[in-house]
Amino acid sequence: MKIGIIIGSKSDFPVAKTVLDVLKEFGVGYELIVSSAHRTPERTSEWSKTAEEKGIEVIIAIAGAAAHLAGVVASETTLPVIAVPVAATTLGGIDALLSMVQMPGGIPVATMAIGNAGAKNAAIFACQILAVKYPEINERLKKYRQEIKNKVVKDNEEVQKLVQSE
Amino acid sequence: MKIGIIIGSKSDFPVAKTVLDVLKEFGVGYELIVSSAHRTPERTSEWSKTAEEKGIEVIIAIAGAAAHLAGVVASETTLPVIAVPVAATTLGGIDALLSMVQMPGGIPVATMAIGNAGAKNAAIFACQILAVKYPEINERLKKYRQEIKNKVVKDNEEVQKLVQSE
Amino acid sequence: MKIGIIIGSKSDFPVAKTVLDVLKEFGVGYELIVSSAHRTPERTSEWSKTAEEKGIEVIIAIAGAAAHLAGVVASETTLPVIAVPVAATTLGGIDALLSMVQMPGGIPVATMAIGNAGAKNAAIFACQILAVKYPEINERLKKYRQEIKNKVVKDNEEVQKLVQSE
Amino acid sequence: MKIGIIIGSKSDFPVAKTVLDVLKEFGVGYELIVSSAHRTPERTSEWSKTAEEKGIEVIIAIAGAAAHLAGVVASETTLPVIAVPVAATTLGGIDALLSMVQMPGGIPVATMAIGNAGAKNAAIFACQILAVKYPEINERLKKYRQEIKNKVVKDNEEVQKLVQSE
Amino acid sequence: MKIGIIIGSKSDFPVAKTVLDVLKEFGVGYELIVSSAHRTPERTSEWSKTAEEKGIEVIIAIAGAAAHLAGVVASETTLPVIAVPVAATTLGGIDALLSMVQMPGGIPVATMAIGNAGAKNAAIFACQILAVKYPEINERLKKYRQEIKNKVVKDNEEVQKLVQSE
Amino acid sequence: MKIGIIIGSKSDFPVAKTVLDVLKEFGVGYELIVSSAHRTPERTSEWSKTAEEKGIEVIIAIAGAAAHLAGVVASETTLPVIAVPVAATTLGGIDALLSMVQMPGGIPVATMAIGNAGAKNAAIFACQILAVKYPEINERLKKYRQEIKNKVVKDNEEVQKLVQSE
Amino acid sequence: MKIGIIIGSKSDFPVAKTVLDVLKEFGVGYELIVSSAHRTPERTSEWSKTAEEKGIEVIIAIAGAAAHLAGVVASETTLPVIAVPVAATTLGGIDALLSMVQMPGGIPVATMAIGNAGAKNAAIFACQILAVKYPEINERLKKYRQEIKNKVVKDNEEVQKLVQSE
Amino acid sequence: MKIGIIIGSKSDFPVAKTVLDVLKEFGVGYELIVSSAHRTPERTSEWSKTAEEKGIEVIIAIAGAAAHLAGVVASETTLPVIAVPVAATTLGGIDALLSMVQMPGGIPVATMAIGNAGAKNAAIFACQILAVKYPEINERLKKYRQEIKNKVVKDNEEVQKLVQSE
Repeated sequence: MKIGIIIGSKSDFPVAKTVLDVLKEFGVGYELIVSSAHRTPERTSEWSKTAEEKGIEVIIAIAGAAAHLAGVVASETTLPVIAVPVAATTLGGIDALLSMVQMPGGIPVATMAIGNAGAKNAAIFACQILAVKYPEINERLKKYRQEIKNKVVKDNEEVQKLVQSE
Repeated sequence: MKIGIIIGSKSDFPVAKTVLDVLKEFGVGYELIVSSAHRTPERTSEWSKTAEEKGIEVIIAIAGAAAHLAGVVASETTLPVIAVPVAATTLGGIDALLSMVQMPGGIPVATMAIGNAGAKNAAIFACQILAVKYPEINERLKKYRQEIKNKVVKDNEEVQKLVQSE
Repeated sequence: MKIGIIIGSKSDFPVAKTVLDVLKEFGVGYELIVSSAHRTPERTSEWSKTAEEKGIEVIIAIAGAAAHLAGVVASETTLPVIAVPVAATTLGGIDALLSMVQMPGGIPVATMAIGNAGAKNAAIFACQILAVKYPEINERLKKYRQEIKNKVVKDNEEVQKLVQSE
Repeated sequence: MKIGIIIGSKSDFPVAKTVLDVLKEFGVGYELIVSSAHRTPERTSEWSKTAEEKGIEVIIAIAGAAAHLAGVVASETTLPVIAVPVAATTLGGIDALLSMVQMPGGIPVATMAIGNAGAKNAAIFACQILAVKYPEINERLKKYRQEIKNKVVKDNEEVQKLVQSE
Repeated sequence: MKIGIIIGSKSDFPVAKTVLDVLKEFGVGYELIVSSAHRTPERTSEWSKTAEEKGIEVIIAIAGAAAHLAGVVASETTLPVIAVPVAATTLGGIDALLSMVQMPGGIPVATMAIGNAGAKNAAIFACQILAVKYPEINERLKKYRQEIKNKVVKDNEEVQKLVQSE
Repeated sequence: MKIGIIIGSKSDFPVAKTVLDVLKEFGVGYELIVSSAHRTPERTSEWSKTAEEKGIEVIIAIAGAAAHLAGVVASETTLPVIAVPVAATTLGGIDALLSMVQMPGGIPVATMAIGNAGAKNAAIFACQILAVKYPEINERLKKYRQEIKNKVVKDNEEVQKLVQSE
Repeated sequence: MKIGIIIGSKSDFPVAKTVLDVLKEFGVGYELIVSSAHRTPERTSEWSKTAEEKGIEVIIAIAGAAAHLAGVVASETTLPVIAVPVAATTLGGIDALLSMVQMPGGIPVATMAIGNAGAKNAAIFACQILAVKYPEINERLKKYRQEIKNKVVKDNEEVQKLVQSE
Repeated sequence: MKIGIIIGSKSDFPVAKTVLDVLKEFGVGYELIVSSAHRTPERTSEWSKTAEEKGIEVIIAIAGAAAHLAGVVASETTLPVIAVPVAATTLGGIDALLSMVQMPGGIPVATMAIGNAGAKNAAIFACQILAVKYPEINERLKKYRQEIKNKVVKDNEEVQKLVQSE
């Protein structure tokens, strides 16, 4: 049970870190590679083509600017590819978002929100895909849902104190 | 092996049709429901909550405007939810796209392109998720990839004739 | 005479604080809850459904990103729901604004400006709704209008000093 | 029980017509005026200032382009003002939307979606405001909610036939 | 020979300051007022209506957010009104720009760039209008053009030094 | 008393026609030239440089896409230059608008709305500039304002008939 | 002397046709291929890698939506790659434009305007690159410039007739 | 073998510096000038017209806001002109990008990404143009590609250490 994570540049590692933290929490293995769609196209192709046979079951691609990485990876594999756009330019990530989400028909890429929220959700979504097959991940997801529910209730309690202290 | 498809309004059926056509081609079963996030919230919740126990393994939500449908469905299930934004207003679908893709951390939704291209990819992506579990779908996906490759080669041949006839 | 305020996340409290300050100034009661459209959907539904019977007459929903909260609340009540989009992502709040304002026909949400200006106006607008029923709030609103007029005149005096001192 | 509707130009009447249809359905009286924020400022001011004393309880302002109408009306009354942006230029209504929704703090305007969806919701929202005061409108709103729920269920039945006939 | 400058809020004074500096450089008189389109509509109307008889020949209106000020002023006078949008919200001033520039046919407003560049140009443009009538301003403008040309040449010299020192 | 009108391409003539119609109505002379900023830069420069000596007092530049025409004209004259962006591409004119309105400090261009509304206002604004010098144009403007006011009143009467006939 | 043209889909041929027409006019040879970045990645890589050795000196890539084609081609060759975004979705081509122009540092792509204007300019720009090496193309370009100048003068004459006939 | 670089303002020098650094690395000569499209139009025309005869083979124009510089330069030469938009306003550079990239048919400008990434790519693209003619630059480009490939591999090694140290 392994997720492949690919980032186009070392500068995207902090966003990838958010993915790793969630996967560790879910007990899911991973493999991370820095490989650019444009600067190392063969390396990226090779990694994508061999991902399935290496046991990777879902891929998460993280990139900014004209973010072609997820599309390039998806063109070389039929594994599900999840895309996380990064706000790497002065346009706030709308460039990366559109470069990822507007994929033409035939080769899908599943796009998440820009930045860390998207990275967190990419990891959870990867687990939701695994949960279709692995009952233990499905159970873990149910538990996670309960945890974030509890967190909202706890947050509400803290906010009530703020309201009262006004 | 069943995909659940939910559309917020009857007017989104032509986009859902694109999904159905692909699923039939892949031999994957489906269940389609019209249920609105806003007009029939309980029906939508109920359908989402019971989807897993009814054997649905992936959900595709199609909606336009302030497209809350995918998020609302995702809040009630841990099944993977794929979102297809529809260009239902004068803003060309950017409203539906941002309403779907910018989900905050915790409850992921996998967003596809606006309109029919997105619907087609939603269906293929749903199959890619199933393929993690079902080897026969994985094989069918490989075949599909070959088919769309062949189609490009054939398109090229036709275009060469157009070029020569100039 | 009570306003219900709902925020999707603890991090939206500073914006809610702007609402509370105005309501206190107008002598209007309120009830604030942290409840997420996506993480605690049942809690949000339950609160929305019972708001009217608890004496809440207007609801203010504050959220960022793919801001579904106001729409989800509005789907469960016929009380007027006012929405305040928050700039919680790298897109400056245009995502939250479109997710709130582009509600399809049938279930209205009254959207205010992004951020604190919108929060202030949400509180005043809630009072304008109450003023339709409660003459004392209507009087208070007239007084408030006079106060902000006076403030502009006073600001002008200060600016004239700056101009003269040039 | 009367709603005031103001449109900046004769060309916005088809959008206003959507409002009138809903109000008639709800049995709510109305008064409609064509008056421009820019071409007839005094007429617009006068109408806005005297709206309350004429028994108008809520105002709906409909305008396109640099849509100042709702803001100008709101500056002259403390009645709730609901704004409907119209797509009257090549920018699809985003100009009218931002001109209405981004009101600075102090003078609120409640913005609805662009075009007919927004017009329909403006009328319903006006009724929701009236319902705070008038129990008969509140009852009518509950009935309306049930009607649109039933409509979704009926739409679903029709779509099921389309699905089966495939 | 006098320019009228109107700002909707004290917080816009730093942008107005840029206007004043240019006008002083050109030896053109001015009158500055803080008056809001929304909070003090009568004061704004009154000032606009009487501007011409007080000897004001051009008006500059500076505002942010849903920037109605220039349109409201223009609706009450036939003097040329120049608009300067301010980036006062999280949207970077595109809201103020569209609220000013997209004026419907009949009541023109001359829009400049967002912020200080626009404020500087508003002042110069006001002088260009005056220059149609006053030859001394026309001469001053020609001199100003020469000065900014010289400035570019001088900037080039400084940059050449930077290039050489590499 | 003469206005110079410059269009970058023959295809912009219908927009220029709107300008001519207003100028004829106001009895103001004009000179129209087709000259491109990019294809005929010298011709454009020459026309701009000599405009003042030929008796032109205000210039209106109409262009679409990367609309440099107004800026290029303004760089060669100190006459007031009014810019009308045209929606000549798939971006609805936002490209032309930003290319015109965001002029850096020093060389102002007065931007109007996209398309015909902007063309009409450019002509009126040109007359407002002339009115600073020519009292007869000032009188004509006052009359025009009254005419458009009357038109709104007449439009209102027509709409009342539509409302009654419902 | 040969230009390589690559389109991602048969539906982009009409835009490519604009390129071919210009190249024929300039007497420059070309080779056109339909090959998708996503559906036929190996074919696209192979064509790009071997372009230089086959005598291609400049490449023009035409694509819409999440337009990765130019970037993918550029990653496999050091020949200059010119990109033409196509308006293939409901977003008017801004998706393709940003997907092409926002290339991260290291692998450049030279982006032209959206659609046919961009296709025409891509062909001319390709000739401008060739002209650095081939004096005959340089001469042809000078002649072309004169032709388009003459065209503007002729257009002006036609427009003058329209103006006079008013 | 010389590249001409033109910046509209001294404040754009840091972006130009990125270009110079790459050109030095490639051993390509350059000439840099500060000259504005609007403030020094004749100087800009003159420099552009004489660029070719001075041995300049490619031009890079860097500008922000309503960035007309590249278009103005391109109108006076048939040398290839590369445009780098700068984020000089509150709009994040989208104004400069559209002002550059949306050039109408006939006079091409090759647009790069906003800011430093674009400046780096402009320099590399200029070398790619030179490489069509000069084999030594072609070789240098191949070497550069290898270098950036090696850099990605090295970055990956560093990131692996970060992953392991978790």
